[in-house]
Amino acid sequence: MNSEIRNKRMADATLKVLRADKTPLANQEVKIEQTRHQFLFGTAAFDLVPLANGQYSGEEKEQAERRAEKLTNLFNTATLPFYWGRFEPQRGKPMTGQLKNAAKWCIERGMSVKGHPLCWHTLTAKWLLSMSNPEILVAQTERIKRDVSDFRGLIDMWDVINEAVIMPIFDKYDNGITRLCKAVGRIKLVGAMFDAARAENPSAILLINDFDVSSAYDILVEGCLEAGIKIDAIGIQSHMHQGYWGVEKTLKVLDQFTRFNLPIHFTETTLVSGQLMPPEIVDLNDYQVNDWPTTTEGETRQVEEAILHYQTLFGHPLVEGITWWDLSDGGWLNAPAGLIRRDGSSKPAYDELKKLVKGEWWITPIKLVTDKNGEIQFAGFLGDYELIYGRTKRSFTIAKENRTTITIKV
Amino acid sequence: MNSEIRNKRMADATLKVLRADKTPLANQEVKIEQTRHQFLFGTAAFDLVPLANGQYSGEEKEQAERRAEKLTNLFNTATLPFYWGRFEPQRGKPMTGQLKNAAKWCIERGMSVKGHPLCWHTLTAKWLLSMSNPEILVAQTERIKRDVSDFRGLIDMWDVINEAVIMPIFDKYDNGITRLCKAVGRIKLVGAMFDAARAENPSAILLINDFDVSSAYDILVEGCLEAGIKIDAIGIQSHMHQGYWGVEKTLKVLDQFTRFNLPIHFTETTLVSGQLMPPEIVDLNDYQVNDWPTTTEGETRQVEEAILHYQTLFGHPLVEGITWWDLSDGGWLNAPAGLIRRDGSSKPAYDELKKLVKGEWWITPIKLVTDKNGEIQFAGFLGDYELIYGRTKRSFTIAKENRTTITIKV
Repeated sequence: MNSEIRNKRMADATLKVLRADKTPLANQEVKIEQTRHQFLFGTAAFDLVPLANGQYSGEEKEQAERRAEKLTNLFNTATLPFYWGRFEPQRGKPMTGQLKNAAKWCIERGMSVKGHPLCWHTLTAKWLLSMSNPEILVAQTERIKRDVSDFRGLIDMWDVINEAVIMPIFDKYDNGITRLCKAVGRIKLVGAMFDAARAENPSAILLINDFDVSSAYDILVEGCLEAGIKIDAIGIQSHMHQGYWGVEKTLKVLDQFTRFNLPIHFTETTLVSGQLMPPEIVDLNDYQVNDWPTTTEGETRQVEEAILHYQTLFGHPLVEGITWWDLSDGGWLNAPAGLIRRDGSSKPAYDELKKLVKGEWWITPIKLVTDKNGEIQFAGFLGDYELIYGRTKRSFTIAKENRTTITIKV
Repeated sequence: MNSEIRNKRMADATLKVLRADKTPLANQEVKIEQTRHQFLFGTAAFDLVPLANGQYSGEEKEQAERRAEKLTNLFNTATLPFYWGRFEPQRGKPMTGQLKNAAKWCIERGMSVKGHPLCWHTLTAKWLLSMSNPEILVAQTERIKRDVSDFRGLIDMWDVINEAVIMPIFDKYDNGITRLCKAVGRIKLVGAMFDAARAENPSAILLINDFDVSSAYDILVEGCLEAGIKIDAIGIQSHMHQGYWGVEKTLKVLDQFTRFNLPIHFTETTLVSGQLMPPEIVDLNDYQVNDWPTTTEGETRQVEEAILHYQTLFGHPLVEGITWWDLSDGGWLNAPAGLIRRDGSSKPAYDELKKLVKGEWWITPIKLVTDKNGEIQFAGFLGDYELIYGRTKRSFTIAKENRTTITIKV
């Protein structure tokens, strides 16, 4: 483990274990076990929507369940799809119930959920096209208020606005959100969207998210912050279909955002295990192939790069989450971007990431003996834990902030 | 003349000419003559500093005077150099006197002057390097206050900040301004620089200026405006050493800035009349050649492109100025970017631009006869004029705003 990870992601804690009568539990063996990372190890989990809504059956259902098991074994966070055009294809008939089932499925399994995205020009509702710009603004604002309110407690983390850098100049096809953004300006639109979301869920983690990692994006973030918009985390996509950025570029990108001293989420991380997309493709969506197989060499490359990417990001003090995109092959662009093959088997990248996330970076059950004061010195990864003494289980949290003693009554 | 130019740059005016006793000057022939464009036809005029300060002699002086004559025959605005490292190589000993002489030289010849630039990371004062960031901020602010104050009335137009998009990430060499910008952020620095300049000359035209014409720049402008910074005009460089942008790109660049409804100045326009700089050069300063001759084919290309560029910009409603960079060959990068060759002769681009600026787009002396009410209907380019009746000369101005009658007493 590199020293950045040790310094940034672990903390020393003193546990003071007391009996019910408040006397120290002296010289006793207890078991300590990590139950959750504070760090958000996430994945796009669109597949959970049909699964949680009973839309699979037979062999298909069993496969989906196996994928879901792999998902919960590795990840603690799921990104669920709120693309407006799909979420509410007919105005007034949103898929709220289905998405709630998927979010509940995650929460029952100890995962947190992020909704993606609330405002985006791509895959937005087609029915906006018949509206005037002021009407689009009202509809978009109401959409955010409705969904953030409906999902409060289930989804408390949102990509509020997606790809605002290109939004007003997006010229692939006419759409309501590009029109709106062109009319009101990027910063005013970001502000209006954040205001709407914040009003309905003040404690939610609200992100701005973009694939653009040029100066345009950090200048936009600066402009939003100078305009008084409260951004909780900066979302950076990293769809590396055309090849891994490498550590140097990754650190350079991070460096552009460190001055804001805000949490950074790598929201959409892709590394393919097949042929790379040709470098001349500018908009990844332009690359349409019927067949894009995973290969043995590709999988070897993918696992090496994935490890390096996760190590780099987990070692950076401002990064608080990484989301893999997609969990299984054949998702967006039909790419072999999964950690799981089409047949449901795990690729090396799945196994090796699990060895990190639930191995090297994880406190597996350990037995420790309290001293005469009932105390235990303990260094753990930031996150949630259980202390087990006999049949008693008590949970506690190791956060960077608590350098003091954690008192646990058993 | 294309219709945009007719619509945007000309206005219909009614002149009502009265005698001293206020009776109409009926049925009399008067002469009308344009004396100045409202539009800023400018050029980099660094060469005027040694000329105005008597630093040339003999043949060199005669050549400089001939260049200066060509300059004043075509242009109404001059950009003078305020690169901090050259303007004040030793702290506390600025070249104020020399620059004042150059500015006065221009004003005596009816030209306006722009100072370029007040804050820039390139060519900045080397002695900033020994300072802390707060000290650099004070020094930079004081420099702006001193110079804007010293030149008030002589120079009332400034490129306040230059290339802020790249400023904090400029990595060619260490310099005080990059350090400062990285520490305080682009928008805060722009704001501080504008505040300093505005405080000393509230009615000055203050510009932000950049070579970056990606989304990063218009997002920066938006961020500055949302943060409450009053920008009087947006400066866009267009150093086309690697080839003319063409009309389409030019209009696309303009389109990115039209939503701000602010005046736009093309502050640094270069079209070479020799070999183009290779496309792989990213920072133009990296291209260092001893010899870069003007050629016949190059001059033919240059004149065609220059005409097209000026027509495009003069036809755009928000553009209020174009500055050619440089007037003579052998300036920046030793490029054949001039309108004048090294031997002092005019290139076709000089002659043809003059035919536009002082020909097609200019009201040469015309004789008109007043009606029985002393009135004349008259369509002219926006700018200053003289009405001559016998030995009496009266000046008047045609502005877009005055659709009403202009009363002139002779």
